[in-house]
Amino acid sequence: MTAAFASLDDLRRRLAGLPGPDPAAQAAAAARQGRLTKPQGALGRLETIAIWLAGWQGRERPRLERVRIAVFAGNHGVTARGVSAYPAEVTAQMVCNFEAGGAAINQLARAAGAELRVVPIELDRPTADFCTAPAMTEDECVAALNAGAAVVDEELDLLAVGEMGIGNTTVAATLAAALFGGSPDLWVGPGTGVDEAGIARKAAVVRAAMEAHGAALDDPFEALRRVGGRELAAITGAILAAREARVPVLLDGFVSGAAASVLHRAQPGALDHTQAAHLSAEPGHARLLETLALVPLLRLAMRLGEASGAALAIPILRAALACHNDMATFDEAGVSGRD
Amino acid sequence: MTAAFASLDDLRRRLAGLPGPDPAAQAAAAARQGRLTKPQGALGRLETIAIWLAGWQGRERPRLERVRIAVFAGNHGVTARGVSAYPAEVTAQMVCNFEAGGAAINQLARAAGAELRVVPIELDRPTADFCTAPAMTEDECVAALNAGAAVVDEELDLLAVGEMGIGNTTVAATLAAALFGGSPDLWVGPGTGVDEAGIARKAAVVRAAMEAHGAALDDPFEALRRVGGRELAAITGAILAAREARVPVLLDGFVSGAAASVLHRAQPGALDHTQAAHLSAEPGHARLLETLALVPLLRLAMRLGEASGAALAIPILRAALACHNDMATFDEAGVSGRD
Repeated sequence: MTAAFASLDDLRRRLAGLPGPDPAAQAAAAARQGRLTKPQGALGRLETIAIWLAGWQGRERPRLERVRIAVFAGNHGVTARGVSAYPAEVTAQMVCNFEAGGAAINQLARAAGAELRVVPIELDRPTADFCTAPAMTEDECVAALNAGAAVVDEELDLLAVGEMGIGNTTVAATLAAALFGGSPDLWVGPGTGVDEAGIARKAAVVRAAMEAHGAALDDPFEALRRVGGRELAAITGAILAAREARVPVLLDGFVSGAAASVLHRAQPGALDHTQAAHLSAEPGHARLLETLALVPLLRLAMRLGEASGAALAIPILRAALACHNDMATFDEAGVSGRD
Repeated sequence: MTAAFASLDDLRRRLAGLPGPDPAAQAAAAARQGRLTKPQGALGRLETIAIWLAGWQGRERPRLERVRIAVFAGNHGVTARGVSAYPAEVTAQMVCNFEAGGAAINQLARAAGAELRVVPIELDRPTADFCTAPAMTEDECVAALNAGAAVVDEELDLLAVGEMGIGNTTVAATLAAALFGGSPDLWVGPGTGVDEAGIARKAAVVRAAMEAHGAALDDPFEALRRVGGRELAAITGAILAAREARVPVLLDGFVSGAAASVLHRAQPGALDHTQAAHLSAEPGHARLLETLALVPLLRLAMRLGEASGAALAIPILRAALACHNDMATFDEAGVSGRD
């Protein structure tokens, strides 16, 4: 585990000194791809994934033995404004479902051969309604960032991050609007399944938050504190701590993407150790990934959260490494090269 | 195994009496999806995959215990026209690589928990150059169709089909042009990596084949015999035999798609038991899938063949069933429904 974040200023400082991938491991992995028994580039994204993992793990032949999925849960004052199809108590009920093994992410983690860690953060203390006040104090925000950092262990081969929190697509839309601008309508969507009137309520919340906080949102960490939420801050903290430990990260959907965007806005390149696992059906996600210049691995019209899309991409990474690590080279197999 | 095909006319007759999915199993699976602890539809394509498997397997809770990947290999007279970046002997060399366990498909099959069956078909007897004569006699074509049917076993839970054959993206382009029309330029592409001049040679081959065979190509099975190849006919036969045994099928890329298209042209709905596993980087594949109204599960810029894309989709299907079969319902988990 990396050192805890002392304050938002500590995060800002640490962002300036992030490590990059290991260029030697990356080059060795790229050279290895060129010798395997297939036309150059024929495995497409599987090749670039293997080289990406090699760089961040610092190994020509990367591995996925210690894979952790972290699901952070939080509650939101803004749910009082009728932005979700489900009551706020579902957050805690779903955490119980995670702990009992009954949710989608339990099955997907098992199928992916990954450890699941569920981190509920102060579910009985929802954030403040950010239409009228900052969602969190600095202490609360830093505590949530550290709850995220605490799931990172430098021995991990991969970390996948996701969340659960009734109302949090509204939070993510507000945070995205704060970080990147644009009309609220571009960022809000049906979430768990609200109707047109619900979507209009979500857009009104985003608009009210922009008016309430104004230019204070220009700083990405202030935006996170004022219009974010605990599970989003935890994801931001986990991604940053993973970068400091050179652990590659799979991002889940729209909410995780909004949390990741804080780092992108604060420091270009801060997400180079991440991949977008999937494109969510939540309409703001496509715009967000385009802004982040991330190309999703999967497009399966999922919109569940819980790290479900991130978990689903783990077998794709395993397959990429199975090819990279275990295929024969042209020389080994006695296969002729190009004419 | 279903009964062998006696002739092309036997295939034509059998196409008219294909079984459909089990509507009761399909409806039960759809109802189950509605009770699981997630918003309705939130698992996107994972939900429709589970229901599709339920229909074809005839089980509310489908399984993927007996999964077979079949890779058919063939050689092509048309390679003499300089349509591939690799010499024709690579087909047999790659079959040896499959048998020795060194190819991409060996690693992907293992990662997917699937049995791999490699079926080389008369590699020392390439098909005739179809620019001047039919690629196969009827007996040769029927033998290849039966080599495909022979990999189907009604106890299979899933069959994935793919191929290896130097020159066969040219064969697939010619077959696609014969079945669906359109300029040769729309169907040819770089394949294993030919340059612009190579692509022009491929288009010239397609054009020459269209002129040589004319209206005889209007019949889809005649098109397969005249401008197809043994591994393509085997895939056609495997897909049809799987349908008769109600075994769901994953299609690999462009070449497999062209082979599948024969059935689609001969009988609308004949591919209802199939899913397109991925969208290949070979440019004709997108057009082909659109024509077949198949939406690919994966888009990872792969263009290897060998059933590699089909194998990669198997973990996605496993994940879909893990959720479908093992998630808790709202009642079981004590989670509140919509407000």
